[in-house]
Amino acid sequence: MLQILSQHADVWGEIRLLASPRSAGRKLAVRGAETEVLALDEEALRGIDVAVFLVPEEVAARWAPVAAAQGTVVVDASPAFRDDPEVPLVVPEVNPHAARVRPHGIIAGPGCTTLALIVAVGALHAEFGLEELVVSAYQAASGAGQAGVAALRGQLATVAGTDLGAAPGDVRRALGDDGTGPFAAPLALNVVPWSGTLQDGGWSSEELGVRAETRRVLGLPGLRVAATCVRVPVLTTHSVSVHARFERPVTVARAHEILATSPGVVLYDDPAAGDFPTPADVVGTDPTWVGRVRRDLDDERALEFFVCGDNLRKGAALNTAQIAELVAVELAAGGPSRT
Amino acid sequence: MLQILSQHADVWGEIRLLASPRSAGRKLAVRGAETEVLALDEEALRGIDVAVFLVPEEVAARWAPVAAAQGTVVVDASPAFRDDPEVPLVVPEVNPHAARVRPHGIIAGPGCTTLALIVAVGALHAEFGLEELVVSAYQAASGAGQAGVAALRGQLATVAGTDLGAAPGDVRRALGDDGTGPFAAPLALNVVPWSGTLQDGGWSSEELGVRAETRRVLGLPGLRVAATCVRVPVLTTHSVSVHARFERPVTVARAHEILATSPGVVLYDDPAAGDFPTPADVVGTDPTWVGRVRRDLDDERALEFFVCGDNLRKGAALNTAQIAELVAVELAAGGPSRT
Repeated sequence: MLQILSQHADVWGEIRLLASPRSAGRKLAVRGAETEVLALDEEALRGIDVAVFLVPEEVAARWAPVAAAQGTVVVDASPAFRDDPEVPLVVPEVNPHAARVRPHGIIAGPGCTTLALIVAVGALHAEFGLEELVVSAYQAASGAGQAGVAALRGQLATVAGTDLGAAPGDVRRALGDDGTGPFAAPLALNVVPWSGTLQDGGWSSEELGVRAETRRVLGLPGLRVAATCVRVPVLTTHSVSVHARFERPVTVARAHEILATSPGVVLYDDPAAGDFPTPADVVGTDPTWVGRVRRDLDDERALEFFVCGDNLRKGAALNTAQIAELVAVELAAGGPSRT
Repeated sequence: MLQILSQHADVWGEIRLLASPRSAGRKLAVRGAETEVLALDEEALRGIDVAVFLVPEEVAARWAPVAAAQGTVVVDASPAFRDDPEVPLVVPEVNPHAARVRPHGIIAGPGCTTLALIVAVGALHAEFGLEELVVSAYQAASGAGQAGVAALRGQLATVAGTDLGAAPGDVRRALGDDGTGPFAAPLALNVVPWSGTLQDGGWSSEELGVRAETRRVLGLPGLRVAATCVRVPVLTTHSVSVHARFERPVTVARAHEILATSPGVVLYDDPAAGDFPTPADVVGTDPTWVGRVRRDLDDERALEFFVCGDNLRKGAALNTAQIAELVAVELAAGGPSRT
């Protein structure tokens, strides 16, 4: 976030850094200025126009209403308010207008898997009218935080240079009971069809989140969405295999035109030249990368495509910063601060 | 294959091992007997009732017709004859009857990605009537042969214990131009949305193979199938995320009953207990493992589920051995050898 704030155009006056008391007193560079971190409390929140929350869900649930009650517009990246119908769920490339209507003074952003696909899907929806999504995610370890990255790196160190991975359960035995880290099974030399918590009907919270968030951001409460979330041994950058069915017939040529000219999207789709997005090439970049665009052979209204998006950038800090910038510009223009 | 022949019930008389002249003279154990490998030629093929071909496509294309012309029933695992409407494409759990009608004396088996999903899908089709499949595959490195396994192991040794994987292209640069092996991009710390050769419309040969083979094995020439094949850093065992839409309404309870009682399928589906299949646990086993069964929230006729199947066992040698055993039993019973 500090990097993004330092790189983007300056729509800010004073930037205040708040954190837990444990981190208070540290000095961090923001836009070239050494800035001391303050402990988060009511006093520190006073007088802030726009507050960006990149904190655990329970911290957001506790402190976002406190800030909002003081007149601050809160932009929260956590899941705390994603289901609240009175909190807009915003992706600036798709539904920027929604950020202006915030009855509680709080704006939320979707989760990182939704953010990996929603910019490309939103652009195609605007042209063709989306009816149905069937998506399978290839989720990176850092979606589970620093513990996920550390666990994958540790597991790879254990399996590299060994014969593990050829006999049932041998990776699991080599890692031991504590070796899977935050994942539900070993991740090195494996894929794990589980992330999040168990919900009704055998669905995971991450899968239901993709459905609910996609519907909210696109403003399509009846959209058919079936998502499967699978963790893969990639450090950072989520990929999603997307089957999208539309109201109107589609062509690859027109889809290419739309994707090539959509803000926040890079079209990278020439398999004859080896051009399609992969996490290892996309990691560390801002846009959603799209490739492997194909028209369904049995349905003139459906497209297949493959997207990659860095789950730590657009999937978290970047989307939050973009929303905050929208609000800052609106406030500077004298727009409604609490409509 | 030798292991499978040694473990299964003996429906064979003499077992003859044929290979390239380079391997001729080696002695291998089959059903406890030391057996000398003979060089493949017309003479060596003479007098064989059932020939199992586990050879490259071009060797099968050259030699299967030679064997068949001598009255041998050929069971071929390669892609050479998969598209030939006069060569039955057989999965014994799904369409065993098809093996009896073989105008050219040749029977083929599908590719390893189709084999990962077809036994479970076929069982559900028999109950509910399949209309549409949308599948995303998580393909293991050994689908690209020994070169794939060696490349992934080498790449993992390069990235383990490093900081690679956090900056765009850093894994690619560390591996160098020759480091990706048979894959279209680095596979360690990555997923690669490409396998096979480029076909019309941006589809890969593997994706079109899943569509054509699934239609043939199920006997549904108009089945809607959209497949996306993605290579993942797993050594062996393909996984597939399946969205299946049926003619009739479905329930998870009934799907569980069907899958739990289908030959060749293991139902492993209790996420509350951490029970779902992963490649690391399934590798080295014969059946198709199925978990994560969910009813689509927006469609009472659709199911989501996740399957894992060892691409070197059911995905290749095992399916071929099962077909050969069907034919051997048929011939022993005096059935038609060339109908």
